Amino acid sequence: MTTKNTAILLISCPDQKGLVAGIADFLYQHNANILHADQHQDAELKLFLMRVEWELAGFDLDLNDFEQQFAPIAARFQMQWRLAHSAYRPKLAIFVSRYDHCLADLLYRYQAGELNCDIPLILSNHTDTQWLAEAYRIPFQHIVVSREDKTDAEKTQLALLRHHHVDFIVLARYMQVLSADFIRHYPSRIINIHHSFLPAFHGARPYHRAFERGVKLIGATSHYVTEVLDDGPIIEQDVARISHRDSLDDLIRRGADLEKIVLSRAVRWHIENRVLLYANKTVVFD
Amino acid sequence: MTTKNTAILLISCPDQKGLVAGIADFLYQHNANILHADQHQDAELKLFLMRVEWELAGFDLDLNDFEQQFAPIAARFQMQWRLAHSAYRPKLAIFVSRYDHCLADLLYRYQAGELNCDIPLILSNHTDTQWLAEAYRIPFQHIVVSREDKTDAEKTQLALLRHHHVDFIVLARYMQVLSADFIRHYPSRIINIHHSFLPAFHGARPYHRAFERGVKLIGATSHYVTEVLDDGPIIEQDVARISHRDSLDDLIRRGADLEKIVLSRAVRWHIENRVLLYANKTVVFD
Amino acid sequence: MTTKNTAILLISCPDQKGLVAGIADFLYQHNANILHADQHQDAELKLFLMRVEWELAGFDLDLNDFEQQFAPIAARFQMQWRLAHSAYRPKLAIFVSRYDHCLADLLYRYQAGELNCDIPLILSNHTDTQWLAEAYRIPFQHIVVSREDKTDAEKTQLALLRHHHVDFIVLARYMQVLSADFIRHYPSRIINIHHSFLPAFHGARPYHRAFERGVKLIGATSHYVTEVLDDGPIIEQDVARISHRDSLDDLIRRGADLEKIVLSRAVRWHIENRVLLYANKTVVFD
Amino acid sequence: MTTKNTAILLISCPDQKGLVAGIADFLYQHNANILHADQHQDAELKLFLMRVEWELAGFDLDLNDFEQQFAPIAARFQMQWRLAHSAYRPKLAIFVSRYDHCLADLLYRYQAGELNCDIPLILSNHTDTQWLAEAYRIPFQHIVVSREDKTDAEKTQLALLRHHHVDFIVLARYMQVLSADFIRHYPSRIINIHHSFLPAFHGARPYHRAFERGVKLIGATSHYVTEVLDDGPIIEQDVARISHRDSLDDLIRRGADLEKIVLSRAVRWHIENRVLLYANKTVVFD
Repeated sequence: MTTKNTAILLISCPDQKGLVAGIADFLYQHNANILHADQHQDAELKLFLMRVEWELAGFDLDLNDFEQQFAPIAARFQMQWRLAHSAYRPKLAIFVSRYDHCLADLLYRYQAGELNCDIPLILSNHTDTQWLAEAYRIPFQHIVVSREDKTDAEKTQLALLRHHHVDFIVLARYMQVLSADFIRHYPSRIINIHHSFLPAFHGARPYHRAFERGVKLIGATSHYVTEVLDDGPIIEQDVARISHRDSLDDLIRRGADLEKIVLSRAVRWHIENRVLLYANKTVVFD
Repeated sequence: MTTKNTAILLISCPDQKGLVAGIADFLYQHNANILHADQHQDAELKLFLMRVEWELAGFDLDLNDFEQQFAPIAARFQMQWRLAHSAYRPKLAIFVSRYDHCLADLLYRYQAGELNCDIPLILSNHTDTQWLAEAYRIPFQHIVVSREDKTDAEKTQLALLRHHHVDFIVLARYMQVLSADFIRHYPSRIINIHHSFLPAFHGARPYHRAFERGVKLIGATSHYVTEVLDDGPIIEQDVARISHRDSLDDLIRRGADLEKIVLSRAVRWHIENRVLLYANKTVVFD
Repeated sequence: MTTKNTAILLISCPDQKGLVAGIADFLYQHNANILHADQHQDAELKLFLMRVEWELAGFDLDLNDFEQQFAPIAARFQMQWRLAHSAYRPKLAIFVSRYDHCLADLLYRYQAGELNCDIPLILSNHTDTQWLAEAYRIPFQHIVVSREDKTDAEKTQLALLRHHHVDFIVLARYMQVLSADFIRHYPSRIINIHHSFLPAFHGARPYHRAFERGVKLIGATSHYVTEVLDDGPIIEQDVARISHRDSLDDLIRRGADLEKIVLSRAVRWHIENRVLLYANKTVVFD
Repeated sequence: MTTKNTAILLISCPDQKGLVAGIADFLYQHNANILHADQHQDAELKLFLMRVEWELAGFDLDLNDFEQQFAPIAARFQMQWRLAHSAYRPKLAIFVSRYDHCLADLLYRYQAGELNCDIPLILSNHTDTQWLAEAYRIPFQHIVVSREDKTDAEKTQLALLRHHHVDFIVLARYMQVLSADFIRHYPSRIINIHHSFLPAFHGARPYHRAFERGVKLIGATSHYVTEVLDDGPIIEQDVARISHRDSLDDLIRRGADLEKIVLSRAVRWHIENRVLLYANKTVVFD
């Protein structure tokens, strides 16, 4: 994968006339070659959401000056906006417990060049997955988390994250609930994988409950972590058909394949700045 | 579709050695040509479930004598069992309110010979779908259901069902909750379609709630009706992918396609005696 | 379904800077409220494709003057373009032979308001589906097509299509091959449903060949008709999983459900002016 | 995964009365506890296919004596049959070229205990994947294959396979065509992954051709290798939806995920003795 040298502008603002013209004119005046532009209007909330990506080769505005130059347009349309540079590789920390399938999948994709990020750190409350970290040469930190010392453990975790300038966190089947305080340090920057089709079977042991309920499909859900458990904005979901022939163990095994795919899609979209949040849900620009 | 002339035996009993041999010997002694045999063991509940279908041509036992002849085997293995004759067309009553997509789909499939049943009766608390009943020449009964007179309405409905010797009922988007008393008249013989992937969004307005929650897939669930709302044994489920581009109206339109397919599969499987119930869930022998 | 009052502009031209700005400025100057804008760049062919839809309420340019006003921009960017008015209901003629499932599905959706078109005419080389046409009150024409008189039959068909000002044609399992001459009268305006996942099993008897080959999925493909059989631009495809338990009859029955859905999606997208053609393939703007 | 201690009997023979009774009686007389029994009748070819699995604990017949004891029944019904012991771990050799995604997936699943086999050997005509073999501690052999010396290379390969008592071979994106002579050494024991929905796009560069044809779904197919290229019995297939937004590189990346899943399913089913071959197609007992 060759690294692209593009800029990405993500915008959300009240819907109004002249928005597209205003943005397109600004980019054209600076000689931008637009590669992708995607927009969405929420008719009910009267909201305009946009993602536009352009080549930096030929663009005559230094990205450091972008904010100042773009400010009048942003003010005129009351925009919330964010500029990203595709060449920047965000720093990802992976949290994991014992199950290693999601970690193995992320590390393989990282190594294969599918994920345009750096992984300075894997954090685990167990040592089961250390061999994987070593095979892919990623630093591994074992931090015990017990009921009594969760606060201390989180302090240690946060210090490590700061030290490595971590941009976002992926909970790759991390079996500890993070404190509200921890989450506030990484708002909309912690991605979790839940092993059910949320909101069905939120909480613990979803495969057991799916098996008992006799559903005909199992699912997995990746979402941003908020203070309400399993209630954050959903990034991606998928399901697989099961039948009475599938035992609980089969559900767990087949669910693991779903979890891997659903989580890795969410991580890639997050890295590629495709996800826009509003009203506790996401727009994923494809 | 040519009508098959087969017998179907459905069995559920404690799992134990010699079961298959016992059943297969009995059928072989009476010269049965087995067309399909499918079995399932629930390892946890130590339960054996079986569906076996054989041709009646050549079978030397009159079906009227089957019970008496099979009784010793059934007793030996503590079987719950049921014999069905594929040439018998069960009598189906369809309940419907205003939405007509499920009704239209069932009637088309009925007319096309996909559903091996008779439909002596369509019951509705509205008249919106009367034209469809007339196009397919099915008797249509309009029975108003108001909050005060639900008991009276159900009495009228039950009388009609008895008069037409109805075997089972399909709620094709029937927007009234049936009383526990009504349900007891047709245990495991009322099939409902719920417009969500149960247990997510049970209860009212599932599409609205799916839209608000920002799920990435919508679903539909067909299930037998029990006294607990939306909690009966699930027969079939399916889902479709949606995106932020889909408005609430799109969800409703696309969901209608799911509902049709999920309901018609459940109805066909019920008619073909493929569904076995246990532990509030279903085995669907395919 | 309330009829929208919008204009839709479909553009294809060499990719170049300033395109989006040029189009957006033009619309903004005429006070357009853009509802949807979607674009696609083909990097290899250096092609820009766009669909933009805006409300006509408040738009200060009469659509009859649009061409003249837009001409300078179109010329500057060497555009191929087309303007559509969402309130216009295109006239659809359905061709059908004996299988009625696609016809029944289209007529139901038409009646339910899902297809924003008029259907002045159903043409068939058989009379099997006449009852359906009558149930939905659509004029039905029976035109026999024999090997010797195909030319005459097509003359009669073309005269009827002209008489009814037909805009586009759907072949809903029409089992006759249209002549190249006929097709030239409706370029990119004849939609066919093929009962396989093209290009697998193009030509005759695809279900039989799928069954023999032992594939694990069956499919259906809707495409525009060109002079090369089963080779026109694909609009939509879908598949369903099958197993050894499915007989050839099961494949045909289950395939029918795929055909209905795949064809109706293509027809709706065509009506909603979502399909852009280039390089013998389609972009479907969703 | 705890290793099961079961026996599996796979049978194919002309369909006839008394088959199930004969087999079930035999097993019952030897005190077998049947865990799974699945059968299939091919009505057209009048063929009976069966897979039955029973616990060896309590079974009073030594598996070494099985053939002799079962011979009369096998002869009576003209059976082709095969007995497998679930505790036996077949020996798998993986052939790979440069693409490593299928190899990485198989090795992960092997290590996670999903594949009940041994992998004594990875063979490659390149060294790109050696690091993966080493991470999972599997012996890796680099054997150069050039146009002139394919025969010599195959001799070397065959010698290695014999030396390691290899039972079956998986071509995990191995980009060399095997000779008919080589294939004859492992009839129905070489599994290939083809990166298209066969029979569409058989032969070379399927993603390129899928992209050019403008299909709306891409697929992958795992099949047994026969002397006719890409024509062997299909074990498993799956597809994924694509759109005009997907570049050729996206197709290749997304196809890789399909290839992994489709291949690993086929390998697992083969190991679990679930696949029965007849008429150049497969029955996969689930």
